[in-house]
Amino acid sequence: MSGPLLYIGVDVGGQSIKAGVVTDEGQPLSSVSVPTEAWKGQEHGLEQMALAVEEAARAAKLDLRDIAAIGIATPGTMDIPKGLILDPPNLKPWKNVPVRDYIHGRFRKPTAFQNDANAAAYGEYWAGAGRGVRSLVLFTLGTGIGCGIVVNGQIIEGEHSHGAEVGHIIIEMSQPRRCGCGGRGHLEAYASATALAQRANEALTRGEISSLQALFQTKGQLAPEDAGEVFRAAAMGDSLAQRLVEETAYFLAVGAVNMMHTIDPNMIVFGGGMTRAGPSFLERIREHVRQLAFPVPAAQTQIVYAQLGNEAGFIGAAGCARMLVRQGDR
Amino acid sequence: MSGPLLYIGVDVGGQSIKAGVVTDEGQPLSSVSVPTEAWKGQEHGLEQMALAVEEAARAAKLDLRDIAAIGIATPGTMDIPKGLILDPPNLKPWKNVPVRDYIHGRFRKPTAFQNDANAAAYGEYWAGAGRGVRSLVLFTLGTGIGCGIVVNGQIIEGEHSHGAEVGHIIIEMSQPRRCGCGGRGHLEAYASATALAQRANEALTRGEISSLQALFQTKGQLAPEDAGEVFRAAAMGDSLAQRLVEETAYFLAVGAVNMMHTIDPNMIVFGGGMTRAGPSFLERIREHVRQLAFPVPAAQTQIVYAQLGNEAGFIGAAGCARMLVRQGDR
Repeated sequence: MSGPLLYIGVDVGGQSIKAGVVTDEGQPLSSVSVPTEAWKGQEHGLEQMALAVEEAARAAKLDLRDIAAIGIATPGTMDIPKGLILDPPNLKPWKNVPVRDYIHGRFRKPTAFQNDANAAAYGEYWAGAGRGVRSLVLFTLGTGIGCGIVVNGQIIEGEHSHGAEVGHIIIEMSQPRRCGCGGRGHLEAYASATALAQRANEALTRGEISSLQALFQTKGQLAPEDAGEVFRAAAMGDSLAQRLVEETAYFLAVGAVNMMHTIDPNMIVFGGGMTRAGPSFLERIREHVRQLAFPVPAAQTQIVYAQLGNEAGFIGAAGCARMLVRQGDR
Repeated sequence: MSGPLLYIGVDVGGQSIKAGVVTDEGQPLSSVSVPTEAWKGQEHGLEQMALAVEEAARAAKLDLRDIAAIGIATPGTMDIPKGLILDPPNLKPWKNVPVRDYIHGRFRKPTAFQNDANAAAYGEYWAGAGRGVRSLVLFTLGTGIGCGIVVNGQIIEGEHSHGAEVGHIIIEMSQPRRCGCGGRGHLEAYASATALAQRANEALTRGEISSLQALFQTKGQLAPEDAGEVFRAAAMGDSLAQRLVEETAYFLAVGAVNMMHTIDPNMIVFGGGMTRAGPSFLERIREHVRQLAFPVPAAQTQIVYAQLGNEAGFIGAAGCARMLVRQGDR
């Protein structure tokens, strides 16, 4: 093979597996999706990952011989050094799935394995919002809160593959909300789309006056996917919705500040569905960060939205494959 | 010069400057202390640092020609890459003190500069409780809470010299206590010796029955240095003191868990005066960590006391000097 190196990145999600060929500069040449169909079992899941690799190459009109390495990102729980998914809540009934060894055996290419949130952070660092910075922390805001941390080009994986589980740091002790993980007072229990819907439901159940009452009465309760309705109502001047959005910005600022006082990165990046709320929401987060952080990081840390959308995961996974090749490891 | 390399580490504190010669394996060959006398101004302070270097060599019966490099650790605020103390609250009236350049110019040796809490963490990592681990987080419990983070042998300094300011992460939003830094809800506002004394004073002012009332009546209020009295009263069965100690263990566990879910190190280390409370206090922290952390880090992360006492800072500073020599930088 001649010319610059190419990589395939794969991002395994609960519903679909995204993949693409990515250049040595982090540009995707293809972007494909195949269904995960986790319920069909992990052997089928591994086949679907292999299919995603093949589809990614085909969509870029490339042969697999043109690919230098493969990177796979998956949700947890996992053992990153061993390339294993252990007991993933979003991929039932999988258990102890040797993802890296399977893909390596199948394609005979250097194969990297990474947590999906970590891969997304690496993607934004390499080819997205963080191009040119030394370090960043990414929060991906969805039904949960994913997080990835990159310092000097290295992902903070942790010694037990639990690095950057920042959705599950404790930010409230005296009246702690219950988190989806079963813990209490976690950031995710305050600032995820699920938490926003939950806080809305509590207020609407109390009978607070709001344009959201119609939706609430119709559906019985708001769900995480209704977060957009809350932001829309806020933009239309609904005062309950505005309060809920403002609280969400505050909670996210608490998460950002806790990372600024721990990692002190160049940049805090917010990605995921909630960022569709647009620049005014980002500005509210920034304002709270300025109030809460020490003066130097408050003035100097960039607080921005992600740029790669839902391609961040496979681009970052490809970036992990590239790191592997550059380091000369398997 | 022949034989293994030797380093001098210097740890500048508000009251005294500690220093010592340290071997290539992290063993101190001398341990000296000179007064900081910060009020006499920063030129005098720099002279005292130089005096500490000379005294450290003399106490080890060595000539400065035997020393390969020097490391200086100081309290903040600071610019670590530039080797500057900026505006240190504990070293008034110093401003913009070029510590590294001064010491380098004075002794013509490679000179490392580091935050004192970071240096202490590196000391424990290199030669103390953390020997052999890849990563650790150190909390130093005193009137405030200092913190240092080492990952794969690298100190998390941060991009604006604000890495590992974990005493100032937010762990409470709804009823946040005021921190010494002016912020609210910070770990330090709950778990430092100052915070323990403050919580004791609140309870004693409310008239809670306790053997601490005698001390409280005599002094008017407990001070941070009375933390030991609270631990002693708890050991004697005083129920208020036991509750205060138990709460402190819980707050420290929250800090530990937040680092386990961010850095996921091999080891969390607690140092500083409060660790004189002994093994039963450490066991209470461990128990709360087991309750609060995810199962894998809860089972696998070591929670231990520091081993180097108040020599951790200068030993770690010497370790930073050693890193500098090994990396071939100035």
